[in-house]
Amino acid sequence: MLPYFEKKFGNASEIHSWGTEAKVAIEEARRNVAKALAAGEKEVIFTSCATESINLSHKGLIEGIVKGERLGKPHIITTQIEHKAVIETCKHLEKLGRAEVTYLPVDKDGLVSVSAVEKAIRAETVLVSVMFVNNEVGTIEPIEEIGRLIKKINQLRITNSQLPIYFHTDATQAIGYLDCDVNKLGVDLLSLTGHKIYAPKGVGALYVRRGTPIARQQDGGGQEFGLRAGTENVPYIVGLGEAIRIVKSQITNHKSQITRLRNKLIEGVLQIPGTKLTGHPTKRAPHIASFIIEGVEGEALLLLLNEYGIAASTGSACTTGDLQPSHVLTAMGYKPQESHGSLRFSLGKDTTEEEIDYVLEVLPKIIEKLRGMAPRI
Amino acid sequence: MLPYFEKKFGNASEIHSWGTEAKVAIEEARRNVAKALAAGEKEVIFTSCATESINLSHKGLIEGIVKGERLGKPHIITTQIEHKAVIETCKHLEKLGRAEVTYLPVDKDGLVSVSAVEKAIRAETVLVSVMFVNNEVGTIEPIEEIGRLIKKINQLRITNSQLPIYFHTDATQAIGYLDCDVNKLGVDLLSLTGHKIYAPKGVGALYVRRGTPIARQQDGGGQEFGLRAGTENVPYIVGLGEAIRIVKSQITNHKSQITRLRNKLIEGVLQIPGTKLTGHPTKRAPHIASFIIEGVEGEALLLLLNEYGIAASTGSACTTGDLQPSHVLTAMGYKPQESHGSLRFSLGKDTTEEEIDYVLEVLPKIIEKLRGMAPRI
Repeated sequence: MLPYFEKKFGNASEIHSWGTEAKVAIEEARRNVAKALAAGEKEVIFTSCATESINLSHKGLIEGIVKGERLGKPHIITTQIEHKAVIETCKHLEKLGRAEVTYLPVDKDGLVSVSAVEKAIRAETVLVSVMFVNNEVGTIEPIEEIGRLIKKINQLRITNSQLPIYFHTDATQAIGYLDCDVNKLGVDLLSLTGHKIYAPKGVGALYVRRGTPIARQQDGGGQEFGLRAGTENVPYIVGLGEAIRIVKSQITNHKSQITRLRNKLIEGVLQIPGTKLTGHPTKRAPHIASFIIEGVEGEALLLLLNEYGIAASTGSACTTGDLQPSHVLTAMGYKPQESHGSLRFSLGKDTTEEEIDYVLEVLPKIIEKLRGMAPRI
Repeated sequence: MLPYFEKKFGNASEIHSWGTEAKVAIEEARRNVAKALAAGEKEVIFTSCATESINLSHKGLIEGIVKGERLGKPHIITTQIEHKAVIETCKHLEKLGRAEVTYLPVDKDGLVSVSAVEKAIRAETVLVSVMFVNNEVGTIEPIEEIGRLIKKINQLRITNSQLPIYFHTDATQAIGYLDCDVNKLGVDLLSLTGHKIYAPKGVGALYVRRGTPIARQQDGGGQEFGLRAGTENVPYIVGLGEAIRIVKSQITNHKSQITRLRNKLIEGVLQIPGTKLTGHPTKRAPHIASFIIEGVEGEALLLLLNEYGIAASTGSACTTGDLQPSHVLTAMGYKPQESHGSLRFSLGKDTTEEEIDYVLEVLPKIIEKLRGMAPRI
């Protein structure tokens, strides 16, 4: 990325050499992202983050469809455990009267049921949006199966000259570890972000299958095939392209190493009395270890862990300061007092065995300390 | 910026030390931006570019007002020479039936008339949006005067319990050279971008005066006081804060040096037969020298200049590949064949006397060459 801050600083929309150099770099990045998704190059739109990608996907589709076709109020199916970017976008569309939304429940493991998706589909359903991996508990959702279901329904719809259902998945937590081939998954829209795969925070992408009617949400110049106006962030786009190339080439190594360490961490934590794993025990992404620690406040836990140099999360990173219990854990059936004791560790390619050992040494002491301080009921 | 890519890579929404470190850095940047605008810290929202800032401002205001108050279809007044981000956002709002828009004409120098703004105001007018400095021709618009006009009208409106008019200026091209004190200007909304002041491409800000009803356009987490969801781009925000601090402390030096070189460039170019300065002769930003070169195609000119290592523009950088004549020059009364020969040089703090001399040596030869090749009519 660094040369694109200094020597190669051209605006990719200019036609002089500096501009061309930047444009070439963007197109190479786009090829790398497209390759990782088994998509066409013109199907990849660069954005400033997954949140923007999701807003563009959902608002863009509702506007794109409403423009083109007559039908009742468009209907969206999503889940109660999506990232806030999906849930808040859907709520916004509801509030403005532009869509009706069904938020599907999940089971205790955080799994969405394919038959629940099927039952929720109505004639007005235009979008199904289910995340690939939940960010708080790591559960992997049955995207391929939902993709097959929608494909089957769409074949009937096409025969009857009806609008198809478009299928979106938020692959933010999946892109570093799982196969995100858009054809295998059967998705029309897929959002991702850079900073989960070692690119910087502030760049994302949206896959848009050719023919999907998306109306631009950020108006201005003609960048990104007319779907996202704004001067291109060349260094970050270069970074995202390179990150996805590297991560995809090393995915097998990372995955087995991280899974082994994650399992060790889970086994160790579960030996502490009054702890529970959250999320599916086996259908889970390699990098997320999430728990309920009974009798402890998550924030207090984080602050003490931080004193030992350990960074962890409670609830979602995006809603810090929010005293509401996690919407994900609530949807999974946990009571508020359980959710308040939620704890999440995220592992990465550089996580070491020593770090896991250190957490397992420190954590029990901290929990004991906090439980000793807690008011007895 | 660099430490925030490596050692200080925390997510500013997390409560551990890495997160806090990032949050502190963002707040310092926010103070620097606020100071440069003489604004309150909570009035500065970081975005991914000026285009996003403008979309948030205009769509956010129309939605924010419609939500709160009953009135006829909201009316926006803007000009025919705004950046595409303003014009396309307004057109989008019109197309969706959410606003009516008046696009004010300008004079031959690209100046908007304050009395034309006054005449265009109706009871339904909720937003006036006039750019501070035009990006293609450098003309400085009478923002302070328009600000005073709107203030006067708003005093009457408040007495009559009517909605005020909100005033937006796009200060993208002004922030590096002109006083952008939001109170002196009398603006409620001001957009800017990083890459015009040596911060990277991919970061911008929107000033939102306290009490201005803006509805969030990018939904998700609670970042940026709930007005812009998405994980914060910490390195770029740090870069924008530092860039604005540096540029404001050096503004006087830069301005006089760049103005001197710009004047030399203008004088030199105007000695070439068949050339005209575009934009106001005196009310113009220091860094823009823009011309019509008769009998020459702008793109051909750029390509030949590029061979000599000189980067220039024709029309707007954001609409490259667009064969339409510049909407700015058209609004200023230039005919399409004149617009096609438009040429713009942008100077910066590192532009040297030698570079200006070099352009003045090369340009006449290139123009002569192209005119020799041009088909005679």
